[in-house]
Amino acid sequence: MNIIILGGGFAGLKLADQLDAQKGFNVLLIDRFNYHQFQPLFYQVATAGLDASNISFPLRKAFHKSRNVRIRIAEVLEIRKWDQKVVTDIGEYPYDILVIATGAETNFFGNKSIETHAWPMKSTVEALRIRHHLVQNFENVLEEKNPALRNELLTIVIVGGGPTGVELAGAIAEMKQFVLPKDYPEIDFSEMKIYIVEGQSKLLGVMSPQSSETAAEYLTKMGVNVLTQAFVENYDGKSLQLKDGQQIPCRTVIWAAGIKGNVPQGIDPSLIARGNRIKVDAHNLIPGTNNIYALGDIAYMETEDYPNGHPQVAPVAIDHAKLLAHNLRAMKKGEPLKAFVYKDKGSMATVGRHRAVADIPKPKLHLKGTLAWFAWMALHLMQILGVKNRIVTFVNWMYNYFTYDQSLRLIFREFNKNEGQRAERRVQRKLEEVGSGE
Amino acid sequence: MNIIILGGGFAGLKLADQLDAQKGFNVLLIDRFNYHQFQPLFYQVATAGLDASNISFPLRKAFHKSRNVRIRIAEVLEIRKWDQKVVTDIGEYPYDILVIATGAETNFFGNKSIETHAWPMKSTVEALRIRHHLVQNFENVLEEKNPALRNELLTIVIVGGGPTGVELAGAIAEMKQFVLPKDYPEIDFSEMKIYIVEGQSKLLGVMSPQSSETAAEYLTKMGVNVLTQAFVENYDGKSLQLKDGQQIPCRTVIWAAGIKGNVPQGIDPSLIARGNRIKVDAHNLIPGTNNIYALGDIAYMETEDYPNGHPQVAPVAIDHAKLLAHNLRAMKKGEPLKAFVYKDKGSMATVGRHRAVADIPKPKLHLKGTLAWFAWMALHLMQILGVKNRIVTFVNWMYNYFTYDQSLRLIFREFNKNEGQRAERRVQRKLEEVGSGE
Repeated sequence: MNIIILGGGFAGLKLADQLDAQKGFNVLLIDRFNYHQFQPLFYQVATAGLDASNISFPLRKAFHKSRNVRIRIAEVLEIRKWDQKVVTDIGEYPYDILVIATGAETNFFGNKSIETHAWPMKSTVEALRIRHHLVQNFENVLEEKNPALRNELLTIVIVGGGPTGVELAGAIAEMKQFVLPKDYPEIDFSEMKIYIVEGQSKLLGVMSPQSSETAAEYLTKMGVNVLTQAFVENYDGKSLQLKDGQQIPCRTVIWAAGIKGNVPQGIDPSLIARGNRIKVDAHNLIPGTNNIYALGDIAYMETEDYPNGHPQVAPVAIDHAKLLAHNLRAMKKGEPLKAFVYKDKGSMATVGRHRAVADIPKPKLHLKGTLAWFAWMALHLMQILGVKNRIVTFVNWMYNYFTYDQSLRLIFREFNKNEGQRAERRVQRKLEEVGSGE
Repeated sequence: MNIIILGGGFAGLKLADQLDAQKGFNVLLIDRFNYHQFQPLFYQVATAGLDASNISFPLRKAFHKSRNVRIRIAEVLEIRKWDQKVVTDIGEYPYDILVIATGAETNFFGNKSIETHAWPMKSTVEALRIRHHLVQNFENVLEEKNPALRNELLTIVIVGGGPTGVELAGAIAEMKQFVLPKDYPEIDFSEMKIYIVEGQSKLLGVMSPQSSETAAEYLTKMGVNVLTQAFVENYDGKSLQLKDGQQIPCRTVIWAAGIKGNVPQGIDPSLIARGNRIKVDAHNLIPGTNNIYALGDIAYMETEDYPNGHPQVAPVAIDHAKLLAHNLRAMKKGEPLKAFVYKDKGSMATVGRHRAVADIPKPKLHLKGTLAWFAWMALHLMQILGVKNRIVTFVNWMYNYFTYDQSLRLIFREFNKNEGQRAERRVQRKLEEVGSGE
């Protein structure tokens, strides 16, 4: 039986792993990238705390020993249901069962000015680009004589008060305190301002009021300006305008305020729910089909406990994958299927060194401070795939802990430059062609 | 006294380091990149053995504790002698003493077809691009049905039989043997061909005949086709043509066959010697000036022992810098200057695991095999700047040694893609402007 899995995130990777070495399942895993991205730590890549490779795991390596899992690095163009094929930019692949685990991408909510000028952080490469931008920013401050422009360069705004935004704001505040003054003794970092902007009335909306409050206290102590019930209206690359009329002059806006599902072509639009997610039943099957499933962030399953769908987090994705693996085996054996039940193991967010918050549902507990911070580190280390990445990440964190100083503030930018130059040349050539044609 | 150093390579970094905390010296270090590049290990970045950050050391971090060394990341546009200023893309800087340590770049010897289609490897980012290209290449093989095109994709040619070319050929041969068959079980790697093409009659031209022969033996044993006295004539991206008429169909040509000095604007052309290097006297002073020096790869100093200039290697650059630091202090005190004398400590090249060659001049020794390999590793580890990079590099090497398998075969390519898309949009816009202007 040919099973095609679209997406090598938490859900897709876990399913492929569970079906590995299972007789009768011929698995093809398709992703745009040749590596699994460990999304919870993007913010550490962006703030030069971890190397991109520490949180990126080559998909091919994960299946070195597999005989029934193949991999293709491709862009999915269309799901063609009538002949059961996935059409990609490198070829067409027939499926008996199709699993959509394409995750979510940044949602700019249709605001073109934000999309053009703000920095999203939904991939390793986007996190690297933020790193390059942040570092280049301070280089630019050095030669900026105009105080207003210096102020713009030295102001960083993070939009979105979820875990990503909170963790990013905390990490940038720590850079400001521990690292940047050493890198740039010529800059007065008391001029640097960090904002976190959230539309709801509190940060970490999904967490307990205690945790939300603690996170806001931590950030405030660390010098971050916390704005809640604040909505972004426009951003021209130089000044962020809020709905209440407030203007924040700044050259860096990082957008962590929303996501939307990455729905492939060929899915019936009537199946798209809020957040651009695909409706599924309790077995993750897409209604109206008998062989197409959706897992993880892209799946929208209404249950009694979760009438608006489950949270779009890694544990749900992993549980989806485990259940589907079980049900696929059950189907083969003619056994009854199990329905999805989500057991929330809690949620946590780290703000800085010795500063984290955690909510645990059973027994009901709210942790904060050092204990929560160590719990956060242990959990993330265990989750990171691959023995070596775990060791290197651990070494990096320990080094960071004792020295307050990583060596990763590197701008690997020739890519851009060469591409830019090539682009210019292309423009030139095109213009010459047009010119000579006249 | 204002000292400007152009270039943060081995020479520039060493000089800044030697002048750090020296009273009366006000140092400005200017580089295009914000990190020192450890060039001897580019080939390991290209073959996914080391992370780019392991061999890149942030310049600002090197001078965290300095009070008299400042850093600017800038492109040098011109040296303006009449008012003693360095003109860059971010501003002008006055100097009393100017030190040119801008190193060398790839020399394509005017062959446009090579420049367009071959991959140079003279920067960290170029090494990363080779890595991405190599990995993408094998992805492309998977869906290639045409045997001739498969053959092109599976053939890799390295041009240049110096240490870089030899080390790169060896590392790719090891990938072919140990790593690639596990990553791509669908590909028959007995079809893969690796060539090293050298114009001289032997590999490693500067080393002893014994070492050259051993290196060629090692490579041959590892399945590399060694072509000597072979000259490249043309490369169209699909087939490499040699002067003797031989054609090698291949999609990957890595060019490690020559370098030329990176001479900034404003240097008298009559001072340019062979290899685009700048003539200097025994104190590294540029003739006709009394305050401009050249160090390292860019400096051309004729001596009795080296009538054609010194070899362009790190030890010469470091010794240049040490001597100039000494002489600058001597000048300040009115003491006599020392002339440069190069003490060759030998040279080495590694071909693969337990396979390296080393020539030591005094006592005259030729090492090979495991001993030379360990010596090579120890030497490079000691040279790599920064405690942490040394530990991480060591961990990486040990991991590699025991598992034959790194996790760095990652294509971080969205850069290119986005830039490409942006370029296309720019072209589109330009064309529309032209169109509407008619």
